[in-house]
Order: sequence, then structure tokens, then C-alpha cells
Amino acid sequence: MDFKQVIVVRSDLKMGKGKIAAQAGHAAVSAAEKSQYKKEWLGQGQKKTVLKVDSEAELIRILQEAKDRGLPVCMIEDAGHTQLEPGTRTCVGIGPAPADELDRLTGELKLL
Amino acid sequence: MDFKQVIVVRSDLKMGKGKIAAQAGHAAVSAAEKSQYKKEWLGQGQKKTVLKVDSEAELIRILQEAKDRGLPVCMIEDAGHTQLEPGTRTCVGIGPAPADELDRLTGELKLL
Repeated sequence: MDFKQVIVVRSDLKMGKGKIAAQAGHAAVSAAEKSQYKKEWLGQGQKKTVLKVDSEAELIRILQEAKDRGLPVCMIEDAGHTQLEPGTRTCVGIGPAPADELDRLTGELKLL
Repeated sequence: MDFKQVIVVRSDLKMGKGKIAAQAGHAAVSAAEKSQYKKEWLGQGQKKTVLKVDSEAELIRILQEAKDRGLPVCMIEDAGHTQLEPGTRTCVGIGPAPADELDRLTGELKLL
């Protein structure tokens, strides 16, 4: 079975690329820690796709849908030391999980 | 003790922000898997700093210095499905490790 991980980032926050990279790193690690498929996914080269949404509401919707489907998921909130207000929701990490399940959930989202 | 993780990204490759985010995610997960301090670092909120170098030679130098100091480190090479040639070295993940050890190694590098 093919496993992958999806990271969904808010594009409306106008974060710089270093900020985005750090938030994506948080999401990748936290979601991986929650997944029962981490080992297989690492063995397959930890496939990872970074997608975007343009609002907090959309980010929360994706989080909730992933939860409803029983997928391993985490919401990343920024500590607010730089650039953003403390507690700003920046991105969601989903999986590793079976690739087809993630495609059904996030197939309509665009690449960041 | 304060732990953190540093991700060093090549800025000379002109990667897009989604590409950078994916590579940083790979580095964050792979370096964390190698670290004996993962659990403490996660408990402290997985502090993460994203820095830059402007050449492959500089990236390799950082990798080697980190290894010489016994730090948990990984080199990320791109699979080359998009944007880059297969095997392109894109970034290095170091730690989690004690923050002061990472500062001595990477203190002169700029934020991405």
C-alpha cells in the first residue's frame, strides 16, 4: 500500500518561506508521531505533498473532515514570537495514511 | 535543558515555497527520528529554526561539521519528480539537540 503525508498551509497569512518551512516541519513531525503508518511511510521515502487553503475556516474544515475519517491529523498554531499573532492557526498535517484516502480528502486543493 | 532543531536550506536552488516546505518537512522528520532527544524536544514544543546557505558546498560543510560534533543529522536529496534534478541535495536537518550546541554550529547562518 502507498502511504503519504499531506500538509495544508494557509496562503492568506502571507508568511515568508522560512516561516512556512518551519510550520510545515512542525506539522510533518506532529502528524507522523500520531500515525500508525509512520514506519512503512519512512521506508517508502516519506512521500509528502504541500497544499494550500486561503482561509482559517477552510483549514478548520479540512482538519474536521480528516478527523471524521479517522485520519491521523494535527493543527499547528504559531507561538507568535515572530510575524504572527500568538495562537494563529497556520497549517494542518495529515498522515502518513493510505494515499488514496488522502487524495479523496484533499484532491481538490491546489499545490502551495 | 533547551532542545531545538535546525533546518538548513539551500537558497541557490530557487525552490518555490511549497517545494521548500516539503523538503523542510522531510528534514524535520528524518533528523528527529535520529535524535535521542526527540521526546524531550516534542514536550518543549519542538522548537525549530530554518536557516540558509547559498551553495551545495556550504550545505555539505554544515553536514560534516554536525557529524564531527556527534549531532543527529540528515541530508535530504530530492527525488526529482518536479523542479529539480534527481539527487539534488536540498537541505540538512540537525537535531533535536541541545540549543547551545546548535547555536555554536550554525550561529553565523542567516534565517531563510
